[in-house]
Amino acid sequence: MINTAAVDVLISEVGPRDGLQSIKSIMPTFAKNAWVDALYQAGVREIEVASFVPAKLLPQMADAAEVVRHAKTLAGLTVMALVPNLKGAEAAIAAGVHKVTIPVSASAAHSLANVRKTREEMIQEVAKIVQFRNEYAPSVKIEAGIATAFGCTIQGLVSEDEVIWMAEQVVSAGADESGLSDTTGYANPAQIKRLFRRLKAAIGSKAGAAHLHNTRGLGLANCLAAYEEGVTSFDSSMGGLGGCPYAPGASGNVVTEDLVFMFEAMGVKTGINLDLLFEARKPLQAGIPNEMLYGMVPEAGVPKGFELTSKWEV
Amino acid sequence: MINTAAVDVLISEVGPRDGLQSIKSIMPTFAKNAWVDALYQAGVREIEVASFVPAKLLPQMADAAEVVRHAKTLAGLTVMALVPNLKGAEAAIAAGVHKVTIPVSASAAHSLANVRKTREEMIQEVAKIVQFRNEYAPSVKIEAGIATAFGCTIQGLVSEDEVIWMAEQVVSAGADESGLSDTTGYANPAQIKRLFRRLKAAIGSKAGAAHLHNTRGLGLANCLAAYEEGVTSFDSSMGGLGGCPYAPGASGNVVTEDLVFMFEAMGVKTGINLDLLFEARKPLQAGIPNEMLYGMVPEAGVPKGFELTSKWEV
Repeated sequence: MINTAAVDVLISEVGPRDGLQSIKSIMPTFAKNAWVDALYQAGVREIEVASFVPAKLLPQMADAAEVVRHAKTLAGLTVMALVPNLKGAEAAIAAGVHKVTIPVSASAAHSLANVRKTREEMIQEVAKIVQFRNEYAPSVKIEAGIATAFGCTIQGLVSEDEVIWMAEQVVSAGADESGLSDTTGYANPAQIKRLFRRLKAAIGSKAGAAHLHNTRGLGLANCLAAYEEGVTSFDSSMGGLGGCPYAPGASGNVVTEDLVFMFEAMGVKTGINLDLLFEARKPLQAGIPNEMLYGMVPEAGVPKGFELTSKWEV
Repeated sequence: MINTAAVDVLISEVGPRDGLQSIKSIMPTFAKNAWVDALYQAGVREIEVASFVPAKLLPQMADAAEVVRHAKTLAGLTVMALVPNLKGAEAAIAAGVHKVTIPVSASAAHSLANVRKTREEMIQEVAKIVQFRNEYAPSVKIEAGIATAFGCTIQGLVSEDEVIWMAEQVVSAGADESGLSDTTGYANPAQIKRLFRRLKAAIGSKAGAAHLHNTRGLGLANCLAAYEEGVTSFDSSMGGLGGCPYAPGASGNVVTEDLVFMFEAMGVKTGINLDLLFEARKPLQAGIPNEMLYGMVPEAGVPKGFELTSKWEV
């Protein structure tokens, strides 16, 4: 087992949600559970296991409650789910999640396209979810991630003032934390530093995770920039599943395996064992045999003489 | 045309040498020349156009002198070539290069495997090349890049003290500059910062380029780290050609297109026009139709609303 008290950064695995909802294959429930188990065995301690949305819209997520219930059997694991609205939050909380994450777009155009609500309506939705949580499940944490924080494929540029304003609004509405998401893979390291610095200045310790994509190859450089700016919580996806894959074999989300390698090689403790993390690709691939898993370090292997910074005690 | 006086970083294109010597195809001379022209049109102002080695060893480089002579017709372009020894340097200088680069391994094992010389013998070779240059071509610049500076696939770890010692030795032997090469794709951002800081402390303004690979996906993150440490000269390869390709579709060398995009998006002027750079992939692909070109930004396109930092005046 690993000494999680000594972890420097939290790697939050979003593959079971962000990854699986973006592919054609539907991963069977037992396979999802086996994958979550393997991630946990590798030392992953926060997993976004599902999205609570109508099964009609996302049949890949029809078993959300079942996956939550299984993940909750793993001691010390923070079980997260994405919820787009109050109805989803009610279902997720009923299933027993520890934390919900609500996507709130900084882009007015993306907000309408993604959740058919204006940004102001989404802030009200966050307030409603907070009210429900306060009344029925006060221990559940609420994250409201600012989507399209670094640019939008529909409207292009997104005002940095509006991004920070959105984060302030969701925190005022009662969210426990608000992170920034590069939904479109538009971000660059200078922008990452500027916006996370402003986010911390605006909402202090409620500044949350960096959810970054690798669409233009800058995923790890952007994670590095965020880390240098003091961010300690990172979303990523095993095999790079999810996001908006343009490049063949490439991916949207930052690849968990590559991200963990970067941090561990730098001497930054993730608490994750890289060999066991590579092992966790097997149940994932077994559950979605027709999908291609991405990842540079799994292909190339670790450098000769490489040692993990996170020490494991057996 | 572009105002090159305002450039913040120098992107040195190594594809015609590092890229073309690593693939099976032999690119015809006229196609190499057309590619070099297109790179130049895009604003690239330093190109490593060839390697002066026996054609028996590297038939891809048999036309080295011809390519140098063509490249020299492009005003303001620094024409570089790799030379492994004095004989190569004599040929390169006879062909008219502005600058030679000599690979000197920090790994004792790699030095023997790569050039069949010990590290000490290679330092003597640098001294011989310097002597020849001083006598016959005093305007030619000499770079001695420290290969395997971040680790070696044969011996594993490479002592950082020995890397810095090697750089000091080649500079003492008369090299004008010494950069660091991640020949094996082993580097991480923390190591990059540490070693380039030490390099600058050891050899001051003679600290040269960062030659980084993307074998484990950290290429751009490592370039960012080097830039933050004050490095302003970067080797990269169009289409990511070259290096040690493990991952299918992926590559060894950092992709020029992605690197230029990162810097320009950050507000760091490269002097390169990204649209014209993408155009330069066409003559490259035409000359090696059976090889796959890599690059995330060429596939995904630039973000909506993106503007180059380097302003072009027509």
